[in-house]
Amino acid sequence: MPQFLKLTPPDEALKTFFKHMPPAQPKTEHISTADALGRVLAVNVTSPETLPAFSRSTVDGYAVRAADTFGASDSLPVYLNLIGEVPMGAAPQFTLQPRQTALIHTGGMIPEGTDAVVMIEYTESTRPGEVEIYKAVASGQNIIYAGEDLTPGQKVLSAGTVLRPVEIGGLLALGITKIEVAARPRLGILSSGDEVVEPHEPVSMGQVRDINSYTLSALIEATGGQPVRYGVVSDDPQALEERMAQAMKECDGVIVTAGSSASTRDLTAEVISRIGAPGVLIHGVNVRPGKPTILGICDGKPAIGLPGNPVSALVIAGIFVVPTVQHLLGVRDPRPEAQVNATLMTNVSSPDGREVWMPVKLTETSDGFQAEPIYFKSNLIFNLARADGLMRIPGTATGLAAGSEVRVTLLQ
Amino acid sequence: MPQFLKLTPPDEALKTFFKHMPPAQPKTEHISTADALGRVLAVNVTSPETLPAFSRSTVDGYAVRAADTFGASDSLPVYLNLIGEVPMGAAPQFTLQPRQTALIHTGGMIPEGTDAVVMIEYTESTRPGEVEIYKAVASGQNIIYAGEDLTPGQKVLSAGTVLRPVEIGGLLALGITKIEVAARPRLGILSSGDEVVEPHEPVSMGQVRDINSYTLSALIEATGGQPVRYGVVSDDPQALEERMAQAMKECDGVIVTAGSSASTRDLTAEVISRIGAPGVLIHGVNVRPGKPTILGICDGKPAIGLPGNPVSALVIAGIFVVPTVQHLLGVRDPRPEAQVNATLMTNVSSPDGREVWMPVKLTETSDGFQAEPIYFKSNLIFNLARADGLMRIPGTATGLAAGSEVRVTLLQ
Repeated sequence: MPQFLKLTPPDEALKTFFKHMPPAQPKTEHISTADALGRVLAVNVTSPETLPAFSRSTVDGYAVRAADTFGASDSLPVYLNLIGEVPMGAAPQFTLQPRQTALIHTGGMIPEGTDAVVMIEYTESTRPGEVEIYKAVASGQNIIYAGEDLTPGQKVLSAGTVLRPVEIGGLLALGITKIEVAARPRLGILSSGDEVVEPHEPVSMGQVRDINSYTLSALIEATGGQPVRYGVVSDDPQALEERMAQAMKECDGVIVTAGSSASTRDLTAEVISRIGAPGVLIHGVNVRPGKPTILGICDGKPAIGLPGNPVSALVIAGIFVVPTVQHLLGVRDPRPEAQVNATLMTNVSSPDGREVWMPVKLTETSDGFQAEPIYFKSNLIFNLARADGLMRIPGTATGLAAGSEVRVTLLQ
Repeated sequence: MPQFLKLTPPDEALKTFFKHMPPAQPKTEHISTADALGRVLAVNVTSPETLPAFSRSTVDGYAVRAADTFGASDSLPVYLNLIGEVPMGAAPQFTLQPRQTALIHTGGMIPEGTDAVVMIEYTESTRPGEVEIYKAVASGQNIIYAGEDLTPGQKVLSAGTVLRPVEIGGLLALGITKIEVAARPRLGILSSGDEVVEPHEPVSMGQVRDINSYTLSALIEATGGQPVRYGVVSDDPQALEERMAQAMKECDGVIVTAGSSASTRDLTAEVISRIGAPGVLIHGVNVRPGKPTILGICDGKPAIGLPGNPVSALVIAGIFVVPTVQHLLGVRDPRPEAQVNATLMTNVSSPDGREVWMPVKLTETSDGFQAEPIYFKSNLIFNLARADGLMRIPGTATGLAAGSEVRVTLLQ
């Protein structure tokens, strides 16, 4: 296991891993835009039409010829003849002549002969058929013209965009009710270890339940991938190789969590290198937790070996599995990660030059968030459940002092 | 519309709204723990068993009697007799006698007669049947004892917790494969306005497509609720009242987005007060966008009127709709909102004493995030899609200076 002796810094490990990863070529599917929350656009989208389709008022008020309002003031209003009201949802059936005006609502279509709208706050309607205007408007004021937002062929969204409610609204505003998105990439998940049993099975002395398969499934699901569980495999080289090869064939990538024993961890690396080329790229990452992490590519598909410790596996999956799923989805320029800035409440030492991801509990105060590091001895995953987020201590730091401002990445 | 003249600050509006909201009593359902991502626990969960179930090694190394290692050092190792290896997944079939040791892996069960584990790094196995120990260990060192994590009856999770991958793992670690969660609350959504048509329908002059129903559906879905769309209603008081009453009967709450015209906005308030008591609580909030927001309770169910402007509706829904859905789900102590701290790149003025939620584009630099305010004239929702988040300017500020550090809430 000579590679293990040289621990690669996490950033460098990720870079090496992605350098060998083929470009994203997600399969795609056509789905209803209304159901596309969290999906990733597979194509650039251009506007099929002009928006707004007609010139509209941006305020409630009176449509006017701007020239008719020149000189209007609080003390010297201009008087205009009210000839009607612009209906909502239809084109007005009249044309304004000089010194005429019409009531118009926000979003109403600007009538012929009109080039501005006076906000209702600056008007008064004291006598039937007459409106007093207290403020002059410039030509074009309070109007958004047809095509000012979008013209046909104009690009509105790029391939690789993760769709939020706002993008779904934008697409529907253009009448785009079906879109092409990346299919959810399939990620095979295996747990190895002679001591590991399925959560619904009875547990004998010395055994523990498999939870890595489920925490990783949930994380992959949250990131937009489709987890495919291949269950628990014993520490038998041939059994592991067969199951991994099957998973690799049926999925777009595979994640294995190693059993706790050192021999199992080596086994994972050997198997990854056997099932496809180039095999293992990184074996051992200079990060705590997560040192025994393995990153490989097997015939163009990612293979990731994670520690068996459930806390380590989940924390380290945030660093390596999440970007892998995003890559397979074709995500470009992901939005900033959810995080908060916080004041560190205690000194934290990290003397061994390794990058540390430390769980912290956040408390909101009137001065902002306070971050309290969470220490625990066991690998019980409930210990991590007490955390709101993870604080990164760079490998170059020897620790962080109480009172420092730190950035906490929220635990997904 | 006298209430409208007094604009309520957003915090106060929310407080008044929730003061009248009945306590959360979500319907519940039993689901598979493995499928519970993002769901909300309906009950407190206690541990049904002891964890760890057996005393385990926390490292790879040799199980020893601590007393046997006293005085061991690099220059003067202690020699112990190797009698075997602890198997993974089973209880060891031997008891250690004085001056004996056994190989043990992380997670392995501590053999009888043993009270510590020496890490493999501090050992050497030069001759068969013998191990050299280079470091003394204290009794209990590198062992996690049975029950040290959890004992039966101990509370592990509280009702109202939103389940992340880590909590799913914790539940499965205890063998809890089914759990009781809050059913997704049903939120009825109506769009009113004579000018509004369904996104798949042809659009005539003066008409616009309904997108609020869909952006709000997506936001409710993202928050864990179940949106139920009641489509577009014309600006007819009776039609609106009938459709709202139906939605209110079939759902746990109703959201109406008003048409653009001022008369429609008043209509919403009148209808809310007619369909249930006490009716409208807040009409007009001192926030931009979102001034015409209406908050009401009708016979114990929330009714929210949002502006028809799609940008305003979505921004303001983050303030009022999201906490309403969380309340209906029974969420307690929600995790911190996703946000980033950023340096504001331009001066922003806000002279009118109103709280402002301004869309910003974020750029990550080596010095952290930079926030660039996004201004737009139209209500085209694609304008908001350019934003990564929203920056809050308090009503008490007259603006924010370039270079200020601001907190940006990421746009969901």
